[in-house]
Amino acid sequence: MAKKTAVIDLGSNSIRMIVFEKTSRYGFYTTCEYKRKVRLGENAYNNGKILQEEAMQRAQKALRFFKQCIFRHKCKKTLIIGTSALRDAPNSKEFIKRIKNELNLNIRCIDGKNESYLGGFAALNLLSSFKNATTLDIGGGSSELCLIKDNKIIDCISLDIGTVRLKELFYDKGKTNELDEFLKPILEQIPENFCNDNLIAIGGSLRAISNSIIQKNSYPLKNLHDFRYKLEDEKEYILKILNAQTDSLADFDIKKDRFDTIKEGALIFLKIAEKIKTKQIITSGVGIREGIFLQDLLRPAQHFPQNFNPSLKSLQDRFLYKDRKLKTPDFVSKLFNVLEVLHKLPSHYKNTLINAAKLCHIGEHLNFYSANEHSANFILGGLNYGFSHREKILIANIIRLDGKKINPYNAFKALLPPVEILAWLNFILALAKILSINEENITFAFANNTLYLYNEDKELDLPIDELRKISKPTTIALAINQKP
Amino acid sequence: MAKKTAVIDLGSNSIRMIVFEKTSRYGFYTTCEYKRKVRLGENAYNNGKILQEEAMQRAQKALRFFKQCIFRHKCKKTLIIGTSALRDAPNSKEFIKRIKNELNLNIRCIDGKNESYLGGFAALNLLSSFKNATTLDIGGGSSELCLIKDNKIIDCISLDIGTVRLKELFYDKGKTNELDEFLKPILEQIPENFCNDNLIAIGGSLRAISNSIIQKNSYPLKNLHDFRYKLEDEKEYILKILNAQTDSLADFDIKKDRFDTIKEGALIFLKIAEKIKTKQIITSGVGIREGIFLQDLLRPAQHFPQNFNPSLKSLQDRFLYKDRKLKTPDFVSKLFNVLEVLHKLPSHYKNTLINAAKLCHIGEHLNFYSANEHSANFILGGLNYGFSHREKILIANIIRLDGKKINPYNAFKALLPPVEILAWLNFILALAKILSINEENITFAFANNTLYLYNEDKELDLPIDELRKISKPTTIALAINQKP
Repeated sequence: MAKKTAVIDLGSNSIRMIVFEKTSRYGFYTTCEYKRKVRLGENAYNNGKILQEEAMQRAQKALRFFKQCIFRHKCKKTLIIGTSALRDAPNSKEFIKRIKNELNLNIRCIDGKNESYLGGFAALNLLSSFKNATTLDIGGGSSELCLIKDNKIIDCISLDIGTVRLKELFYDKGKTNELDEFLKPILEQIPENFCNDNLIAIGGSLRAISNSIIQKNSYPLKNLHDFRYKLEDEKEYILKILNAQTDSLADFDIKKDRFDTIKEGALIFLKIAEKIKTKQIITSGVGIREGIFLQDLLRPAQHFPQNFNPSLKSLQDRFLYKDRKLKTPDFVSKLFNVLEVLHKLPSHYKNTLINAAKLCHIGEHLNFYSANEHSANFILGGLNYGFSHREKILIANIIRLDGKKINPYNAFKALLPPVEILAWLNFILALAKILSINEENITFAFANNTLYLYNEDKELDLPIDELRKISKPTTIALAINQKP
Repeated sequence: MAKKTAVIDLGSNSIRMIVFEKTSRYGFYTTCEYKRKVRLGENAYNNGKILQEEAMQRAQKALRFFKQCIFRHKCKKTLIIGTSALRDAPNSKEFIKRIKNELNLNIRCIDGKNESYLGGFAALNLLSSFKNATTLDIGGGSSELCLIKDNKIIDCISLDIGTVRLKELFYDKGKTNELDEFLKPILEQIPENFCNDNLIAIGGSLRAISNSIIQKNSYPLKNLHDFRYKLEDEKEYILKILNAQTDSLADFDIKKDRFDTIKEGALIFLKIAEKIKTKQIITSGVGIREGIFLQDLLRPAQHFPQNFNPSLKSLQDRFLYKDRKLKTPDFVSKLFNVLEVLHKLPSHYKNTLINAAKLCHIGEHLNFYSANEHSANFILGGLNYGFSHREKILIANIIRLDGKKINPYNAFKALLPPVEILAWLNFILALAKILSINEENITFAFANNTLYLYNEDKELDLPIDELRKISKPTTIALAINQKP
């Protein structure tokens, strides 16, 4: 597969392009994203769904701009898909031909089921574990739902309700009183088995609502992807957005370019969430574009290798020396096991430690001094996919600690485990990090409250001063080059 | 020159190794640093300066460890130098031979003048501009002073006073009352022309004192290199360190491994600072090791090309796409010029803008989303050499703003220019950044309070929505694709 791939989707509301860069077979990250609010579907819903000439010209201009970007970014592959506005339009073939002739770009029009599948596929592969959920992607022309059970995509549907469509047919005409009647039969198309405790929120409108909640609650991590909230806690607030005057939407931290469709989005959201009896909302920063990219990337298996995380791998690819394999992950694992009698931590913390060990050196690529701080910042800013916010914050936090005493003040305290647990993870990682600077084979043993570190075949050369500095979770002696 | 170079220096107190990595002809950064507190000079000062067997064994063990690191880091070149303890010792040749035989490492013993020159050379090339200064590098066995006038090294001297030497000869023996008498003739060796308003502080003891002051004053930037303070303001505090009980040194944020020599360091510092009538202290994070590396790197000219900054270049090398040259630096420069009638800013702000434009995209290598935040953090963490703290913070700050409104609360406020100036720099950079996404040739003109942007040969394709969002420093209209 090409190193850089551009994916463009033409929605009713905006045209967006993402450039993905592969850093290894399955490791990748987003190099850039451009959006042009073209509103391809403008005035189509009142005109037999025919794409209007002005809208097509705007779309063509945007695509010309994207083509230049693709050229400048040296993308080796370009995938362009058209969704609702295009598939509804009687003159879509004409438009697709025109773009082919004028810009030599190939647009593939996909049906609603496929669109739904792609959103579900992206969420399934790039969110942290959820097992069961129904995704909801609210677009300008349509809304897609995808049912996921036991980590498998079970069913996909597409509904003919979208923000631009509702805006033009009802809000712009002051006919909002007719909305309920219009929505009722459409909502009834949702099968009973789509009911789900978890709703995965995809698309700009739902992201804007999640962002608004993050701001209101002063939630400490400013990441949308994988942000979760209980609908019960926020329903009243979302209703306030729905009923707000347009000019007061800024008070809800809604961005200006979202003012004209956020109410429509909130309405569709609440109606569908109620219909499928949702309890928890899981925000997804990924959707149809990531789905398209992943389908291509994951050929033929259509899933990542087991225990593989594309963000973690891509951070390693970008920021670690490829030829310098340190034993830190191996050492944290062994230390966790040998000290289990003492710390008694659940085994998932071992995975946390292993992931932290894999990433604790990435900040050195910026600066060796305070590298622990840089590594932690890189993780908060760049470990995007497949980790819950709590996991991500915990990994960043123990790397930042770097064996130092735990400061009781921490902006992320509410999302972190108790200090006793942090103290153990901090100790194990810091110890493993120092041990791995110079040694590759260490035997660990624990007896009589003493941790023994030795190698049967040689004397370990370890910096005693630095080992002594590590803050300990409890009284525990270190015996170096001694067997129990 | 080799891509990775290891530089080791054997001091009386510790042996340190830095690995430098070149990212282009003159761009470089520090890949790692290791320190072992070997105390090679231990007990030598009471034994005819003869290196003691135990100390030599410790040094050999440390060098074996460093050799393994050199191997693991795949360094192509290794430069090892011995300073005071080695050059004073009658048995140094024996030790050097032993290391050659046992480890196949070549130690070059350098004289005091050369040691002084190397510290001065590093400071001259890697600190922000100072023109005139005297460097002071306090080591374990000796202290070096280097006189710099009009950015040229004029004279170098080395004095036989160092922290370990004073400790063993006076402090350990409770003979501190004899110190003044001992120091007097040595201080008189400092020539009159070494007197200087600026003292550049090199070496671990002086860095520890600067760090202590940074903590005490809650100085917002936790960078030692290029941290400056007025001696008058801090003299009393340094005297407190000098007179503190050893076990209360932690209250001064002095690290444990520095407890045993910090008083000696503070004493030498104050005596010499007084002797050369210093007013301002400029902390240097670089010294003899960087000097050795730079002598090799800068052959044959022995200076960087004009207007070249090795840190800035290395950040570009590491984090920007090499094949994607954006016009942002060119556009900020043109915008600054064309708007000069309005903003009336001193021309040094144009350089700030150009540097910010060169670095504003580096954070995209971590994550395209919030890339401005990442770029700003990269600059605070990685733009080490040649920039004053104020310049560095200003560059990071306008990149972080990214065209948004200026938040009056800012941790760095005391080190930033007034909001009116920030508002202009913010506007110009954000505008240039958006313009450069898609355009390479733009003509700028200003008339009737309107900024005209056009290209004689084609229509500019610019995202109007995004341009409108940029926060403006004053009422000013944008006319796109129009000539005045």
